[in-house]
Amino acid sequence: MESRSGSAAQGRPVGRGPKVCAAVLAATLAELADVGYARLTVEAVAQRAGVHKTTVYRRWKDREALVVDALTDHVAADMPIPDTGDVATDLRALARLLVTHLTVTHLGVVATMFSDAARLPEIADVRRRFFADRFRRATPLVTRAVERGQLPQGTDPALLLKSLIAPVYLRLLVTSEPLDDAVADHAAEITLAAARAGVFRSTKVSDPD
Amino acid sequence: MESRSGSAAQGRPVGRGPKVCAAVLAATLAELADVGYARLTVEAVAQRAGVHKTTVYRRWKDREALVVDALTDHVAADMPIPDTGDVATDLRALARLLVTHLTVTHLGVVATMFSDAARLPEIADVRRRFFADRFRRATPLVTRAVERGQLPQGTDPALLLKSLIAPVYLRLLVTSEPLDDAVADHAAEITLAAARAGVFRSTKVSDPD
Repeated sequence: MESRSGSAAQGRPVGRGPKVCAAVLAATLAELADVGYARLTVEAVAQRAGVHKTTVYRRWKDREALVVDALTDHVAADMPIPDTGDVATDLRALARLLVTHLTVTHLGVVATMFSDAARLPEIADVRRRFFADRFRRATPLVTRAVERGQLPQGTDPALLLKSLIAPVYLRLLVTSEPLDDAVADHAAEITLAAARAGVFRSTKVSDPD
Repeated sequence: MESRSGSAAQGRPVGRGPKVCAAVLAATLAELADVGYARLTVEAVAQRAGVHKTTVYRRWKDREALVVDALTDHVAADMPIPDTGDVATDLRALARLLVTHLTVTHLGVVATMFSDAARLPEIADVRRRFFADRFRRATPLVTRAVERGQLPQGTDPALLLKSLIAPVYLRLLVTSEPLDDAVADHAAEITLAAARAGVFRSTKVSDPD
C-alpha cells in the first residue's frame, strides 16, 4: 500500500485517507479504459469514485498527475519483481508478467494510452514518467544479477529492461501478432544473449575485460 | 518501378498507365498524413490525384488494398536493402534507414497508422500485411549473412528483423525517447549478439553445432 501515497500525497492528511485514495485511483483506471486519456476528466473520476472533485484536487494537482499515479500504483501492485537467484529465470518471469499485464489485466487502459499518443502532446510526458518509474522498480533484478556475476559489470539496467520489453510491445503495437509466453521467453533470450555479450554496458563504466 | 504494379494491377492495362498509378499512390500517402487512416476515403484520394474514383476502383478493390500498396511501394522506394558483405554493417545500415524513414520521411503517415490502431479492427490486418512484406524484402540480408558464415545456420530472417526494429519502435511508440543513429546502432548490436548466440534459429531446422 505504500505506493498509494504517491507523488502528490506528500504525507499531508487529506480526504478520508487511504480508502478514498484507492477509490480515486481505481476510478481513474476504469475511466481510462472506458473513455480513454483524451476524454478523461477529474469530474468523471470523482463522480465514479463517489467523492467531491475538490477531494481529488487536494491530492493531485491535475489529471496528468492522477493518471501517472493510477498507472504507477497499478503496475506496482500487479508486477512484483522476480528474484529467483537466476537472471535467466528472472527475465523470463518479468517478460511473462508484462505479457499477462498487457493482455489480461488492463488491455483497455494500455490500448488507450498508446492510441492517443500521436494526437496529444502531453501523453508523451505521462508515458515517459510512467516507464521511468517501471524501469526504476525493476532495476534491482539487474543489479542483483551483476552482483552474482551472472551479467557483466557495468550493465545498464534501463538499457537491458528496454530490450526485454521491446519485442513484446512490437507485437502489441506494430505487427499485431498475438502475445503469449513464447514471445516473453524469446524476448528474455534475446536480452540475455545481448547482455552477456556486453551490449548493455554503460559507456561511462570502465571495462574490466 | 516494378513494385508499383502491386497486388491489384495484375498486368491488366487500366487507366492511363504507370503515371496514374504513381499519382494515386502518392495521393494516398498524402491523405494518410493529412487525415489519417480512419478518415481516408477513395473519393478524396481520387480528387487529390486528379482522377475519377472509378479509375482507382479499377485498380484497387478497396481502400485497404490501396493503403497497403501505397505503403509497400513507398517502403520499397525508400528502403534499399544494404548489401556490404558484412552483416554488422548491413544491420546498422538497415536500422538507420528505418530511423530516417520514421523520423524524416513520413512521420505523419507512421503516426496515423499507429494512433488509430486501437480503434479500428481492420488496421491490424493492414499493418500485418505491410510488415510481412517488409520482412520478406529484407530477408536476403539475413540469408546472405548465413551463406557467408557470419550468422548461424537456420537463423530465421523474420525473427532477426523483428528484433532489429523492436527497440526503434519502442522509442517511437512507447517511451517517447528521441530516435537517432545511436538507437539504430544499439538495436543492431543487440540483434547481432542474439543472432550469434543462436537465439533466432528456427526450431524446425536441425542444429549443426
